[in-house]
Amino acid sequence: MAYEPTRLERLLFRLEAQHRSLNWAFGEIEDKPGPVLELGLGHGRTYDHMRQHLPGREIFVFDREIDCFPDCTPPAERLILGKLSETLPQARFRFAGKAVLVNSDVGTYDDALNAEMAGVVSAGLPALLAPGAIVLSDLPLLLPGATSLPLPQGVRSERYFIYRSP
Amino acid sequence: MAYEPTRLERLLFRLEAQHRSLNWAFGEIEDKPGPVLELGLGHGRTYDHMRQHLPGREIFVFDREIDCFPDCTPPAERLILGKLSETLPQARFRFAGKAVLVNSDVGTYDDALNAEMAGVVSAGLPALLAPGAIVLSDLPLLLPGATSLPLPQGVRSERYFIYRSP
Repeated sequence: MAYEPTRLERLLFRLEAQHRSLNWAFGEIEDKPGPVLELGLGHGRTYDHMRQHLPGREIFVFDREIDCFPDCTPPAERLILGKLSETLPQARFRFAGKAVLVNSDVGTYDDALNAEMAGVVSAGLPALLAPGAIVLSDLPLLLPGATSLPLPQGVRSERYFIYRSP
Repeated sequence: MAYEPTRLERLLFRLEAQHRSLNWAFGEIEDKPGPVLELGLGHGRTYDHMRQHLPGREIFVFDREIDCFPDCTPPAERLILGKLSETLPQARFRFAGKAVLVNSDVGTYDDALNAEMAGVVSAGLPALLAPGAIVLSDLPLLLPGATSLPLPQGVRSERYFIYRSP
């Protein structure tokens, strides 16, 4: 029987994947102006990592509600609250073709909900992306024309995905 | 200014420290019979890691209450519920000089409470430890006669501690 990662390892490997992928992505977008989008704030850990490593970059956060560490709360003018199935389609009026990096972390332990959320993100995201934008995702996405990129070296999670928009 | 780890890195480095230290400790206790103690179950991630890597070993879990993933719930006969300041002193009647590995994860973001909990663990634990027992802790402990051991290679957390009892 293949080794099944423990609960400790599943979270460790997920954070490791986020950390290495984000750090790689920061270099990729260095010379490309444009906003960064975070889909799913959660506790605010990846948001905190992005804002510290992307000073001066506008980071817009989408989530249903705020449930983060108080010191990780995004400024109100860059917070888009509501269901992604509604806020993402609306966001094309504001971000059409502009976003250079998207970090999508909207998965749960509910497989049916994950499939639904992957569909919502896959449908709503392409219109917002700048050419060559990087998309990091905890769910597999179907982004028309996008290239699926290999994970950075050392990443042990099989549940993490990187795409580059056309 | 020295680089301050982000929220993402603080959790990542903590899990990395737990993971590498536990895996190292499993080898250390391989030939030593005796129970393993987990102080602070939390979501049950390290408990899940220990039970998968220590099949056949009795693992006793101390916590105030159960708040873990349902599939990480310890069997009732190895669960000791209550305040550590009460359950740990009482445990000496059951475990005196027997525990070969202890994983203590009782810290929070509250520095005053952490100091108090470090005192509770430092006072109650020594009587339970077998000679040469390994103690992993997220708080610095004062265990009389114990040796403070270096963290395994690659661990980036400065908030993790390993001791070997005399």
